Amino acid sequence: MIADNASRESGEDRLIAKYFRPLARHPGAFGLVDDAAVLTPPPGADLVLKADAIVGGVHFFADDPADTVAQKALRVNLSDLAAKGATPAGFLLSLALPASVGEAWLAAFSAGLGADVEQYACPLLGGDTDRTPGPVTISIAAFGTLPQGSMVRRSGARAGDRIVVTGSIGDAALGLAARLAPEGVRRWKLTSAAAEHLTQRYLLPQPRNALAEAVRLHASAAMDVSDGLAGDLGKLCAASGVSAEIEVARVPLSAAAGAALAGEPELIETILTGGDDYEILCTVPSDRLASFHAAATAAKVPVTDIGCVQAGTAPPRFIGRDGKMLLFKRMSFSHF
Amino acid sequence: MIADNASRESGEDRLIAKYFRPLARHPGAFGLVDDAAVLTPPPGADLVLKADAIVGGVHFFADDPADTVAQKALRVNLSDLAAKGATPAGFLLSLALPASVGEAWLAAFSAGLGADVEQYACPLLGGDTDRTPGPVTISIAAFGTLPQGSMVRRSGARAGDRIVVTGSIGDAALGLAARLAPEGVRRWKLTSAAAEHLTQRYLLPQPRNALAEAVRLHASAAMDVSDGLAGDLGKLCAASGVSAEIEVARVPLSAAAGAALAGEPELIETILTGGDDYEILCTVPSDRLASFHAAATAAKVPVTDIGCVQAGTAPPRFIGRDGKMLLFKRMSFSHF
Repeated sequence: MIADNASRESGEDRLIAKYFRPLARHPGAFGLVDDAAVLTPPPGADLVLKADAIVGGVHFFADDPADTVAQKALRVNLSDLAAKGATPAGFLLSLALPASVGEAWLAAFSAGLGADVEQYACPLLGGDTDRTPGPVTISIAAFGTLPQGSMVRRSGARAGDRIVVTGSIGDAALGLAARLAPEGVRRWKLTSAAAEHLTQRYLLPQPRNALAEAVRLHASAAMDVSDGLAGDLGKLCAASGVSAEIEVARVPLSAAAGAALAGEPELIETILTGGDDYEILCTVPSDRLASFHAAATAAKVPVTDIGCVQAGTAPPRFIGRDGKMLLFKRMSFSHF
Repeated sequence: MIADNASRESGEDRLIAKYFRPLARHPGAFGLVDDAAVLTPPPGADLVLKADAIVGGVHFFADDPADTVAQKALRVNLSDLAAKGATPAGFLLSLALPASVGEAWLAAFSAGLGADVEQYACPLLGGDTDRTPGPVTISIAAFGTLPQGSMVRRSGARAGDRIVVTGSIGDAALGLAARLAPEGVRRWKLTSAAAEHLTQRYLLPQPRNALAEAVRLHASAAMDVSDGLAGDLGKLCAASGVSAEIEVARVPLSAAAGAALAGEPELIETILTGGDDYEILCTVPSDRLASFHAAATAAKVPVTDIGCVQAGTAPPRFIGRDGKMLLFKRMSFSHF
């Protein structure tokens, strides 16, 4: 029992103070020096709660830039808040780090996270940092607020509603495929700009939080597309007790995905069932469609009407240009 | 593109439905079939938010029983809510599982978790399940409620306040030491019941949620003891801008810890600086002490007055029976 009762600050405390305290400017985060955070919900508000983790070697590559890894971890959660119609209020971060991760990685990670804290007005409220013998594991629990009772569920779709998606579908899945097998990019004859577009879409989701209010005000059901459009639409239909028909030719594709598809028509399955789009899929009653489109235009989020909700409980049908139904080997991505 | 658009349910969906949906009976969990959960805070309430993860091989042993692993993961968070004076409202679970984990493990895990959901009235609200090439990693974000502005901070301790701890200190650290080096148990000449007591205290924390209201009503500052009494008291004092003096002879020990200490006096450092106690450390103004003790008695939580808060910013002093100050090699546990 020699030594130094004065060195109160552990290595973990030092890391938190250096890299994460600057991201925790919400008064309820208490500068990350207390055991827990406090959130005072606005009167009449519900809290929307979401947790999603990403794991090195599973959801991102070990050599991905640390700043985009941090942003992906937060954005996959922000995407859910957006699809539910909620405004971000803050998040908790549980970070498990292998010994191989040094301060340069942490500095880049916190810089990326800090940029998104600003961009999405979603402060870091608290969390913890742990050692792991496994890969970097980032667990985020994100919180949003909305007027009581107004969360947009998966279960509200009704026959006759139109089916709408934001942005473009399939880019991230093609970006991942290209990364796993670069010869694909050569076979698809993509320009380097097109290949880079797809790669970036896998690396860094662009959640549609700007559309949250429009979804809340006008959509009958919504979810974010994270496991592939086909499978996620199937889940939304199952939750709503309805069926759906999608005109595949209307599914919005980026120029890069369109070029890849032109070179290899079989890619339509990757596009429609691959994951990581982080676009919003929602159903809108036809009498709300004009208002929804106007709100989306005001929010500068591109939206495309791709089909309609139908009565029945048959799985959603994806109808090709030839009028025939597409059949997929699998409907969506699952790690299990 | 052959096959079966009808098999909408992925392996992950099936696992969640089988093992976790039964734990998600809160209406805002939507049976785990939506993307997010909803919590409607009681009028006038603050939400207290806490995230803490446990990692296989770091915070528990790979062969620990899955039911107690689940309970430890939840209870380390419940312990923080208790120390802050909050009533549990629910939690989100991010579970990363290696391929080696089978359904028997998951069944035991969810049974243990379900028992605590009942015992602590803390429903599962949502979460996600992922594959990992690393060890089992369980990240929990837990939420509590309390009247607005009433969270008990670390920073409210004032000179003259008494310092109180619940239960007994050091058991879990001795249990871990015994597990890592079983010859210690022989050297300490413990009965098998005493050794088992220490082992259980490491395996399964007993958070003091029954004391939360008493802490909220009477304590000037509080935190849970998770990284060792000495270091955690140092953090509380630093946050409050005060010093403290502890009479080591008053620190409450279990019979098992007392027996070990009698056999090996040097264990006092393990007892006072080892982690995983999950007791509450709080400071109580002297004019609230009688009320606090009465409330603790009513809550059936043993509490012990171990010292007092003092002016100054010197590190807390631990004074032995001989009147001399104990010096520790390190103040608390840190993985970094």
